[in-house]
Amino acid sequence: MMWDHIWINGHFATMNPALTQPYGAIHNGAIAVQDGKICWLGLMSDLSDIPEKLATHVTDLAGAWVTPGLVDCHTHLVYGGNRADEFEKRLKGVSYEEIARSGGGIRSSVTATRAASEDDLVKRAQKRLNNLLREGVTTIEIKSGYGLRTEDEAKMLRAARRLGRDNNVDVVTTFLGAHALPPEYADDADGYIDLVCSEMLPAIAAEGLADAVDAFCENIAFNTDQTRKVFEAARAHNLPVKLHAEQLSDQKGSILAAGYHALSSDHLEYLAKDGVAAMAQAGVVAVLLPGAFYCLRETKLPPIDLLRQHGVDIAIATDSNPGTSPALSLLLMANMACTLFRMTPEEALAGITRNGARALGRGDSHGTLETGKVADFVVWEIDSPAELSYAIGGNPCRAVVRQGKLRDIAV
Amino acid sequence: MMWDHIWINGHFATMNPALTQPYGAIHNGAIAVQDGKICWLGLMSDLSDIPEKLATHVTDLAGAWVTPGLVDCHTHLVYGGNRADEFEKRLKGVSYEEIARSGGGIRSSVTATRAASEDDLVKRAQKRLNNLLREGVTTIEIKSGYGLRTEDEAKMLRAARRLGRDNNVDVVTTFLGAHALPPEYADDADGYIDLVCSEMLPAIAAEGLADAVDAFCENIAFNTDQTRKVFEAARAHNLPVKLHAEQLSDQKGSILAAGYHALSSDHLEYLAKDGVAAMAQAGVVAVLLPGAFYCLRETKLPPIDLLRQHGVDIAIATDSNPGTSPALSLLLMANMACTLFRMTPEEALAGITRNGARALGRGDSHGTLETGKVADFVVWEIDSPAELSYAIGGNPCRAVVRQGKLRDIAV
Ligand SMILES: [Zn+2]
Ligand SMILES: [Zn+2]
Repeated sequence: MMWDHIWINGHFATMNPALTQPYGAIHNGAIAVQDGKICWLGLMSDLSDIPEKLATHVTDLAGAWVTPGLVDCHTHLVYGGNRADEFEKRLKGVSYEEIARSGGGIRSSVTATRAASEDDLVKRAQKRLNNLLREGVTTIEIKSGYGLRTEDEAKMLRAARRLGRDNNVDVVTTFLGAHALPPEYADDADGYIDLVCSEMLPAIAAEGLADAVDAFCENIAFNTDQTRKVFEAARAHNLPVKLHAEQLSDQKGSILAAGYHALSSDHLEYLAKDGVAAMAQAGVVAVLLPGAFYCLRETKLPPIDLLRQHGVDIAIATDSNPGTSPALSLLLMANMACTLFRMTPEEALAGITRNGARALGRGDSHGTLETGKVADFVVWEIDSPAELSYAIGGNPCRAVVRQGKLRDIAV
Repeated sequence: MMWDHIWINGHFATMNPALTQPYGAIHNGAIAVQDGKICWLGLMSDLSDIPEKLATHVTDLAGAWVTPGLVDCHTHLVYGGNRADEFEKRLKGVSYEEIARSGGGIRSSVTATRAASEDDLVKRAQKRLNNLLREGVTTIEIKSGYGLRTEDEAKMLRAARRLGRDNNVDVVTTFLGAHALPPEYADDADGYIDLVCSEMLPAIAAEGLADAVDAFCENIAFNTDQTRKVFEAARAHNLPVKLHAEQLSDQKGSILAAGYHALSSDHLEYLAKDGVAAMAQAGVVAVLLPGAFYCLRETKLPPIDLLRQHGVDIAIATDSNPGTSPALSLLLMANMACTLFRMTPEEALAGITRNGARALGRGDSHGTLETGKVADFVVWEIDSPAELSYAIGGNPCRAVVRQGKLRDIAV
């Protein structure tokens, strides 16, 4: 039987850690797909016949580089309004307090998200998503967390699911009811957490709207006891968990997350050694978000060396959100991971492919170029994989293949 | 006589400082062009007749925002090779010294640029230029400075001129022979400056290859005496000057530049009050380069408040270059100007339009939307002009008009 399609004469940054070359590289190789999966990947010289006899379709890559499809494993892409006005006010000297008093900050995103229809949310998020699609994102996580009441959290997740159906992209959804306190529960965090656990999560789970459950564990958000309740509720619904942790202080949230075998713990600027060890032990992925670090002009770096020493996998994501990271480029995040966090270009690329997939529980099927995995990959106009992290703000994406088929990138 | 084309029902961030609204905004307006120039701009309600009777072509902007075409007034876009390998080596822990010893740093760009043909240079720069064209750049400056001998400096500038002819964009060229010392003159800076002034500049000027002359005045480059010689030679050829100044230390280069009525003085992190005053006095534009600041992880901010107080116009540019700013997005530079330099979104937008044009001596014809100016403008998918600086790494450019005609942006 012939393969569906073979791409020949390319260089492959497979990101397969079992291969010893940097980037798991295969030079002068070919990749073949069958039924949306990678069915062959190797050296041109190892092909058993001429390409035309092996596959129905043949594409000559003419020496281009190919990487796995990019994975953006932490975003808040769906929301109403935006906060450009607030960004501008702050730079004109208006204080945070004054902005908060006039209904700004996350409060304004909650108001706008509640006021928006599902259609509105989809339409606005689509424009943002287009930017990520254009640079080769094939899997993207989208969280709720600006509705903060059952119907609006569900609306956000339905919008996220629809973006997945409307576009040639995998959308993975996360329920983040425990993102912030809604105005109705301004002085009752425990009461709100009860609502999250006993009403919101069951409703969301019943409708199959969430692939995972997340919370924001921080002194300005929820404490570890409240976070534990959310994790318990998630466990009761058989949903994996992840956590916004150690962004502003060391709350030991990552240790808690490790106890629940979380998929990932995210942000981590203030993560200490005990948290790193717990994550390593439980196989929790560290998701670093340099866009938020940059926006907040944070100076405390996440403990990269400790994470390396303990063998914790590091993913990189946009954290795309209206307040602290209105980021729409995953390649730029890779550059920031290198420039600001001093990660290597290879680590950064692993962060937006292999480890991003692991942070979504898709490490077995996505994130590297390997036989048997889903055939999601990107063809680049570059001379070496390091260029993907080296350039600032450019987009050398030439073609995107998802599930074995060329994706239209003119979005 | 009918106008060639009218765009109706738009919002215009004219950036005309004579208009009192923020961004010089005209809401619910129209813009008309005739022979490549703006012939009418104002409120829809002030149109003297229905659009179809006023212009041959009518386009409905449907409430979109329009800004002047973007101006990137400081780039080194043309060069051979790139330095992604060096970027990667540094992040793997190889020292600057080791890299320099093995022919890295600017030396490697000089070697690669000398080895490249004019065609090679054009081909590589074209890919970079495409990124800038896609986001609405209609005028771009390109410097020489990696040839460092007459034939190769001329080759770079010919490549730059060709990029202008090959694309629907204004390319403004700058001769930067005094960028660094070539290996042949490693111990003879004065000798090299003599070559720049007595051989290189006359040859470049004779061929009409340069619109301006630049130098790098710094403790690691050329001193003020050497810079003065370059400026004198430029004056003798009736070419305006500009300067790389005060990037790493306060050499008082900007004061020297002001004495020659330089178009601009660029970088300026270490600019002191006397330099600001001299620039204000002589009308020199301050070109700030946040991409280089970001890449070098510089912590000393340029004296934004002093520049404001003295009324010095501030431009923002990519400084696109292989070593210290491989930046390919001018909108991202606007975001960095806000995020890192605490400029306002309106100042940032002025920096990549009006003041960018002024830094190139084109303030009278470009950089704002005003009757009589060249009809270069961009249509954006945004709700407010602040969004152009607020988003990180996105591209909301919907259409580009250059010299009154729609430009194909599918590059
Ligand atoms: Zn987040
Ligand atoms: Zn420069």
